[in-house]
Amino acid sequence: MFGVVLGVDPGLSRCGYGVVRRDGDGLGALAAGVVRTAPDDPLSERLACLDHELSAIVAELEPDALAVERLLFQHNVRTAMAVGQASGVILAVAGRAGMSVTQYSPNEVKQAVVGHGGADKRQVQVMVARLLGLREVPGPPDAADALALAVCHAWRVLPRSDGATAPGLARAVEAALAREDTP
Amino acid sequence: MFGVVLGVDPGLSRCGYGVVRRDGDGLGALAAGVVRTAPDDPLSERLACLDHELSAIVAELEPDALAVERLLFQHNVRTAMAVGQASGVILAVAGRAGMSVTQYSPNEVKQAVVGHGGADKRQVQVMVARLLGLREVPGPPDAADALALAVCHAWRVLPRSDGATAPGLARAVEAALAREDTP
Repeated sequence: MFGVVLGVDPGLSRCGYGVVRRDGDGLGALAAGVVRTAPDDPLSERLACLDHELSAIVAELEPDALAVERLLFQHNVRTAMAVGQASGVILAVAGRAGMSVTQYSPNEVKQAVVGHGGADKRQVQVMVARLLGLREVPGPPDAADALALAVCHAWRVLPRSDGATAPGLARAVEAALAREDTP
Repeated sequence: MFGVVLGVDPGLSRCGYGVVRRDGDGLGALAAGVVRTAPDDPLSERLACLDHELSAIVAELEPDALAVERLLFQHNVRTAMAVGQASGVILAVAGRAGMSVTQYSPNEVKQAVVGHGGADKRQVQVMVARLLGLREVPGPPDAADALALAVCHAWRVLPRSDGATAPGLARAVEAALAREDTP
């Protein structure tokens, strides 16, 4: 049974993170933000910085699970390689902490959080804010994406009072969708 | 001034490493081997294992510099991504230890160690063994490649008695080349 989920939107210059935990039959946000590394610094120092910052978050909030965006082929090889290197560091942090790791495509996250895979970023952000009971849309965008990943994973594994999964949160999505009048 | 150089041939299933140090006007080998991770294990555990093993080598031998193979675009995207993730972990280990990092292409290594960029693997291995005073060609191949990277970098930065770089080792290369009768 999970208690806390860390969502990460991998990147080298900007790496979004968001942490959610069970809150009754729903979810609450524990933390969200962006780890930035300086493009002028040596690559090894940037990756060590990412390692250090994420390790500190894991040590403080003790997540059981990591939900991370699945890497897809990108046409810009340099960017793809930097994201791959950052993702290697992120996964190693999770592995060292004994966390389970699940990868999601952007469409899977949209499907889980908004109810259809074609949702735009703004719809995802609004739903994440509602599901987590936040008054404002979380920002910056990388942090919101990371929270959406964490919510997506938590939704799948959060146990109901009766032991089944997909709980009050599913009802909350339905209710929010009804308010949004989104199909 | 450098004392010890760690060479790494990045990989997830097999990651070669080799450590060389100054030995008078030449070089000596301190360690060489391969870190293996099990393909059936979760990716995060494999990357954490690589992190752990390389960190132990760095803690024990305290290299000042990392020489690592430059990643080139590969047509197999899955392999390229795995190598990228492994390289991210390797660079973060170096960054955490405050090591300088230099990347070399395979051709640069061959040029430095054998004297021409078109050398085959066997020629590189034979030269590495001679330059390091090893009786046998170092193996397995990933370890030999990593030693070659370390030798390549050491050759560039090793100070001569008179303070200039490229020293006895350059003479050793020339002598070994003469013996090999290689142009």
